[in-house]
This record gives sequence, structure tokens and C-alpha cells, in this order.
Amino acid sequence: MTRQKQGSLVVIGGAEDKEGDCKILHRFLRLCGGREARVLILSTASTDPSAGEQYGAIFTDFGAHDVRILAVPSRKEANQGEFKQVFAECSGIFFTGGDQLRITGILGGSRLGDALRQAHCRGAVVAGTSAGASVMSETMLVGGVDDATPKKEIIRMAPGLGLLRQVVVDQHFAQRGRIGRLLAAVAYNPEMLGAGIDEDTALVINEDGVCEVIGSGTVTIIDGRNVAHSNISESRPGQPLALTNICLHILAEQYCFHLNKRNVFLPAAKEETSR
Amino acid sequence: MTRQKQGSLVVIGGAEDKEGDCKILHRFLRLCGGREARVLILSTASTDPSAGEQYGAIFTDFGAHDVRILAVPSRKEANQGEFKQVFAECSGIFFTGGDQLRITGILGGSRLGDALRQAHCRGAVVAGTSAGASVMSETMLVGGVDDATPKKEIIRMAPGLGLLRQVVVDQHFAQRGRIGRLLAAVAYNPEMLGAGIDEDTALVINEDGVCEVIGSGTVTIIDGRNVAHSNISESRPGQPLALTNICLHILAEQYCFHLNKRNVFLPAAKEETSR
Repeated sequence: MTRQKQGSLVVIGGAEDKEGDCKILHRFLRLCGGREARVLILSTASTDPSAGEQYGAIFTDFGAHDVRILAVPSRKEANQGEFKQVFAECSGIFFTGGDQLRITGILGGSRLGDALRQAHCRGAVVAGTSAGASVMSETMLVGGVDDATPKKEIIRMAPGLGLLRQVVVDQHFAQRGRIGRLLAAVAYNPEMLGAGIDEDTALVINEDGVCEVIGSGTVTIIDGRNVAHSNISESRPGQPLALTNICLHILAEQYCFHLNKRNVFLPAAKEETSR
Repeated sequence: MTRQKQGSLVVIGGAEDKEGDCKILHRFLRLCGGREARVLILSTASTDPSAGEQYGAIFTDFGAHDVRILAVPSRKEANQGEFKQVFAECSGIFFTGGDQLRITGILGGSRLGDALRQAHCRGAVVAGTSAGASVMSETMLVGGVDDATPKKEIIRMAPGLGLLRQVVVDQHFAQRGRIGRLLAAVAYNPEMLGAGIDEDTALVINEDGVCEVIGSGTVTIIDGRNVAHSNISESRPGQPLALTNICLHILAEQYCFHLNKRNVFLPAAKEETSR
């Protein structure tokens, strides 16, 4: 008996190219099987019922024959629908952007949520953009102040879908000046890695925890494991955080990072650079 | 014969409090001698001739008896005026905000510039806010894209006044999302430390290279000395930078950093935390 392979994750920082070479969306579809892919688009994050249609049209245009859109606007529908079969057969699931709390509030612990998790465990690729990226984390960022000095209270967190362990994802990262909020999240628990994903940029993560950067921006990895000092436990409301000896990696396309070993691999030689 | 002590530097991230307890401006004046201070305000960075008056009124209001404003709007005036005496007697020099290239373009290599440097060498404190902070560096940031993925071409640099060695200063740091541009500057030459100073925050730097953070925000120190890999030499225009193993410190009020030893001292015990 062979062990089932968990599907890859494609964690997208939002605003991915949809008109040019669509590198990220093509990569997702290729991972799901290309023309043979069976793709489910989940637009639950958005209140706009047409949010999934744009992606549906794109994947169909790429040649995928079987693309379905599940809007699932309420928890009632997430528990009533007959999702088991459609998830059992899908090869890829794509979360659109919107509000990450809509995704977890509607899907978390529902029949649809269970079917999705089972699909991922048996090999279906799961992708998400913007809110759909944040929701991958076990504990996700749901809000925060952009372009801000890192402080304890500038972020709000909530339980995510937990498809990506020990990593807090932030998106629209450089474009919205979000390093302060991701640093605050890592300060909460430096065991977590912070992954700040720029727009039109994605991390493709395989089941062994190897991430590859694709797209036109960078992914900022914040590794707090060796933080020597943090004032988070004693800092008062409004007081800025202090954190020393954070390890930061700025990774561009083709760079890889091993989530478990926490080291970087260069594009060409896949040479290990951490020390 | 005792060696002359170089004056301290007060490097301010802009938008410092001018109405509340004015912690940063008070600290500058105290360093210059308080009521006995002889302060010169240099508003050359701004084309607005009244730019220095606000600071003049503040320092006078604090009790300083001898506050003068030097607008010096052109290189001609920087070379013609009789500055020697006034600089020889001053205990503090304050650069207002504006455009750092106006400061260096007008003062660099002029008689006024020489008098200023001599005053600093014999002990006068030099403070600068915003553009007046950037200009402290040997090679200064003069422009760049805010909230941007770090790329080689998103910044412009120029020779600064060089009062602060081996440190590239950036200001309005968290508020304008400037970590991308400061990372690019450090990537240019990882021997340089990057110091990103938030608004209403300052680094007070003594002649031994010990910096103390004051004010309501944080100072982000980017130490690239142990960068394991950088793609800056081979990256093409438009291509994002990749940098691995950057050491980052987020320092709040009362935290100190030793510029030469590159380590952090905590507020209470002045305990060394780097490792």
C-alpha cells in the first residue's frame, strides 16, 4: 500500500497576472493536471456572486474541460450541499480573494470544509489568492494596520484552515507595507515563520515543505526562531514592539525555501545558503 | 592635551512631536546645553524661507536664549557669508526637512559646509529631521519607491554629508513602507548598516557609535554583514532582489545599538542580546 500524497499548495499574494503570461494561474492548472484538471473555484470569500466567474473563464480559456464554481454564500449551504462526490473527483481547488473570515466562518467545520480537507489529503492542489492565501495558515492574519510601526495591537488573528502548518501568511505584502503587521504576528509566537507574499507572486509548496517562489515580486520570509529578545509580553498598548536578531530572507522567482529545515536553495544549483 | 569630543548626532525620522511633550526636540536641546545652548537652524533643505521659524519658536519656547536661523538658499550664499564665527560658537545645529539634495548641493564643499564640519568635530551636536536625517549618511538615499518590492532600480543614492559613517538612513520608515528601498540600499553594499527611522522617532548617536532610540516609533536596523546570497550583481532591470540571511532588529524607545560592534543593548540591564 502506498501512502497517499497530500496536494501542493499555491499561496498567492493577490493581484496575480490575468492578462499576460498568467504564470501563476498556469502553474496552478498544470499542477492540477492541465487540460485534464478538475477544478473547483470557491468564491466564498467574496459577497459578489460573480467573483468566481473570472477565474472560471481563465481556466477554461487555458484549456481545462472541467471547471466548476462553488459560491457557497452561507454556512447553511456549506452543510446542505452534496459536495462529497464533486470534491472526491476534483484535482484542484482555488480560493478567490475577499474576506478570510467569510471563508472560515462559512466553511470551517462544515461538510464542505471536511470534503475539502479530504480532497487535499488525497492529493488535490489547493490554491488561494489574497484572502484565499491568508486562510491557509493555522492561525491567520485577518486584519491589521498597513504601513505601521509594529505594535501588539495592530493585528487581529483567527484560526485559519490550517492547510499550511507553522506559517503565518500575509499578502499584498510590499504593495501595502505590511512588514510591521507580519513582524507583530511572528513576535506573538516566534516558532511561526512569517511569509509575506507580494502581489503577482506565489509560493508553491509541496508536501515535503519545499516552497518555490514564482511571479514578478518577492516573498519575504521572517524567521524568528533565533530572536534573542522580544518585549511583547511586557509591552503596553500603544507601545512599539522590540525584537532583536530576526532572520530575514527576500526571495525572488525560482528561489526555494524549506519550511521544516528553514533554509534557502538558490535557483540554479539549488545550493543551500543558510548558515 | 585632551582629545576633542565629536558632537552627538540626533537623527530624526520626520514628523517629530512639536505640540506634546516634544521628547525628541527637548533631548536635542538638552544635549546642546539647554538654556545655554547656542543653536543654529539650517533650513536649506526647504525652499520655504519660513521653514526654520517653527523650530526657532519651539527652541526659544523651551528656554534657549540663542537660536539663529540660517536659510542659506543658494551655494553663493553658502560661500559668501561669514559663518566661521557663528559656527565656532554654536553648540547645536538642526537641519529641517525638505530635499536632501538641496542640502548637499548647496552646502557640500562650501565655506558653510566646512564650518559646520569643524563645529561638529569640536563638539557641536548635529540633528536632522526627514531629509536632514538622510543627509547624515556618507552615501545617502535621495529617492525611491515606497511600498515596493525591493529591486535594484527603485532607489537613487548620492554622496551625503558623511557625519554618520557606514550607515544608510531612511526616514518616515514604517509610515511610508520603506523597507524595500532600504533593503535595496543594503544590498548595494552589505557592509553598510541600514537604519530605518519611523516618524516621531530618533536615534541619538554618541561619538563612540552607541545609538539610543527615543520617541514613539521604532528604528529598524538592517544588518547585511552575514548575507549569504545576493543576486544584485546579476539581476536585470525590473527583476526583484533576492537576499538571504539578513539580520533585522526592531528597536523601541530606550533600546541601544552599537554601530561598530553591531549589537543590541536592552533598556534596563543594558544587557547584550546579540549572538
